[in-house]
Amino acid sequence: MQTPWEYRYAHRMQKMGSSVIRELLKLTEQPDIISFAGGLPAPEVFPVEEFRAACNHVLDNFGPQALQYSTTEGYKPLREMIARHTARYAVEVTADNILITSGSQQALDFIGRLFLNRGDYIVVESPTYLGALQAWNSYGAQYIPVRADEDGMIVDELEDALRIGPKFIYILPNFQNPSGYTLSLERRQKLVELADKYGVPIVEDDPYGQLRYEGDHIPSVVSLDSEYRGPNGSHYSGNVIYLSTFSKLLAPGLRLAWVIAPPEVIRKLVMTKQAADLHTSSFNQYVAHEVAKGGFLDEHVKVIRATYKERRDVMFEMMEEVFPQGVTWSRPQGGMFLWGILPEGMDAAQVLKRALEKKVAFVPGGAFHPRGGGDNTMRINFSYSSPEVIREGVIRLGTTLKELIGETV
Amino acid sequence: MQTPWEYRYAHRMQKMGSSVIRELLKLTEQPDIISFAGGLPAPEVFPVEEFRAACNHVLDNFGPQALQYSTTEGYKPLREMIARHTARYAVEVTADNILITSGSQQALDFIGRLFLNRGDYIVVESPTYLGALQAWNSYGAQYIPVRADEDGMIVDELEDALRIGPKFIYILPNFQNPSGYTLSLERRQKLVELADKYGVPIVEDDPYGQLRYEGDHIPSVVSLDSEYRGPNGSHYSGNVIYLSTFSKLLAPGLRLAWVIAPPEVIRKLVMTKQAADLHTSSFNQYVAHEVAKGGFLDEHVKVIRATYKERRDVMFEMMEEVFPQGVTWSRPQGGMFLWGILPEGMDAAQVLKRALEKKVAFVPGGAFHPRGGGDNTMRINFSYSSPEVIREGVIRLGTTLKELIGETV
Repeated sequence: MQTPWEYRYAHRMQKMGSSVIRELLKLTEQPDIISFAGGLPAPEVFPVEEFRAACNHVLDNFGPQALQYSTTEGYKPLREMIARHTARYAVEVTADNILITSGSQQALDFIGRLFLNRGDYIVVESPTYLGALQAWNSYGAQYIPVRADEDGMIVDELEDALRIGPKFIYILPNFQNPSGYTLSLERRQKLVELADKYGVPIVEDDPYGQLRYEGDHIPSVVSLDSEYRGPNGSHYSGNVIYLSTFSKLLAPGLRLAWVIAPPEVIRKLVMTKQAADLHTSSFNQYVAHEVAKGGFLDEHVKVIRATYKERRDVMFEMMEEVFPQGVTWSRPQGGMFLWGILPEGMDAAQVLKRALEKKVAFVPGGAFHPRGGGDNTMRINFSYSSPEVIREGVIRLGTTLKELIGETV
Repeated sequence: MQTPWEYRYAHRMQKMGSSVIRELLKLTEQPDIISFAGGLPAPEVFPVEEFRAACNHVLDNFGPQALQYSTTEGYKPLREMIARHTARYAVEVTADNILITSGSQQALDFIGRLFLNRGDYIVVESPTYLGALQAWNSYGAQYIPVRADEDGMIVDELEDALRIGPKFIYILPNFQNPSGYTLSLERRQKLVELADKYGVPIVEDDPYGQLRYEGDHIPSVVSLDSEYRGPNGSHYSGNVIYLSTFSKLLAPGLRLAWVIAPPEVIRKLVMTKQAADLHTSSFNQYVAHEVAKGGFLDEHVKVIRATYKERRDVMFEMMEEVFPQGVTWSRPQGGMFLWGILPEGMDAAQVLKRALEKKVAFVPGGAFHPRGGGDNTMRINFSYSSPEVIREGVIRLGTTLKELIGETV
């Protein structure tokens, strides 16, 4: 007799589904499929040689420490380096404001664990990052979506949402996943003001902030909050919990990210992490610190920007050329994704089915909308495939769209 | 104005405390303190050279893959290697039975998330592993402790506990943390039988199984369960979820462990892990596979055993010599800890205070008892300190104990 496991699972598991995207990625792993579905960095830009040198240096000089158990907060020189990096963007923090996590996904999970009782509301952009929804669904979160356009969350619609009494506002201000939208400076200022007015904290998720290919850097929400709050200039006063990651700048396979928050919140997150996995790999923290400490990232990010800009430009160019009338797309100035919008009433999931026959893939946008809608939207990645492959993939996708639009008309 | 964070935390955080041990470890980090408090492997046995070779090999041959995002289940060659290793102990599993986790702590957390509704009961040994209690407290677990002696959980007392209807039985059968106790073969068989009778699954946590310094290997609970169930010989049929780790055999700084469970449970754990941290560091999985694949661990574990056996023997010898009458201790045949028992009524926390003045530390045993008691017990680690340091530390501890017992009499 088999043990009847299905009767044993906790209630929270009923809201857990496997990620649409990760399941889809399995489909698209066939080598002849051109996949714009994933959210992968280009492996060509991983600094393999620098990693090799760093691994050797760390093992030569810190072998026993780097391989041993470590503190939950994270390797202090790495946290100090992140604090210095953060200070360049006018947010004055120390290592006590920083927790190293095993990827930003873990930070999202911990934020759910720390703040969410079943039924609590979170204000999100619509569309929003699927990984955050996945993390928070198991804590019984409910979502108040606020619409977004090319300038990000439509902040004029935020006040009504805040009056419902959410636990926090979740926002990806730069080159958002999935839409590629960037929150304008004016809207950021308004966001900080409204969050303060209603006493609602902000979770700012910023994996792509450094990946800007044109236009000017826009100050982060956390830095605007610092200015807004601090009578003595830019001092982090803490209505924003800020997340960022080494996944897009160095390599996602290390699973290294960080949270910036007031020390009292960090202390709670540390307790959460103790119970969850003790600490993030000490070896990886030493290696990342060794790779990054001499200012390498400042140079390396230029290579990443040049690579992704070229890919994005090729994608724009090809879409202009081959996508049929009625299909539109966002024009992100950075990041890894753009957002395709099909004519009203067209179903992106159906388009995907047909696209897979033509050996090209993307992610239908419905899943990014926590309260439904967006069935006519598509997330399209431009960071992973080479320009040649992007050219061919967009042609296939354009052909698919033309056929389907032709059939509909 | 500061944001009033303390009003925002979820209910579950009220049961979360920072680990007594990890807080204590901070105290004992002063360099002049001899600490038997931690649970650290000896850094001298970390195979630094093999790691270096493996890092270089992995970056030479698999750089882009090892640094990229990866599947949630874990690196397949590593899972296959673990399956082969497991088969040597008469448990026939495939990669589909295995999930790679970021340390066993993460596996414990996921098991809580997967199975526990608030108020659910878990049968545990008393004393039991503190990390498991920490992981499960935040899910609102309640505990049914079953007493243990030198032969492990007193299984005769288990049946009453099972009639309460627990979600699962949690057991560390080999050289338990904190007690060093090992569950006898007879009791393992009885455990499997009772678990089957009441339809209650077993979570077998086995970080130390390979660290036996004398006596014969005792079959794991999971293998006995396989024999018990399988009419056609040893086939894993799945009433036991088995956890083990590379932390004690290779290096804890990698944060690499694994769960063996029926495929349907693995699929649920994979969903849980997707939401929690996407996947465990791909780079570390490649490196561990590279270090371990050629049978290195079989040789390496001999070095670890020899090192820890010597340390344990020195500790036994010194305790015989200097500990006062009335203090007893367990005689583990392996592992990293032994269990000191003070005369009834004596408080180990008070002993620790005095011991710290003499610059020696251990962990008072009370925290390992989920329903109280055990105030006269002490967890003492023998794996971390060198034989010379152990000698000196036991002398200091013996002096402390003599003074306090002298004062009490």
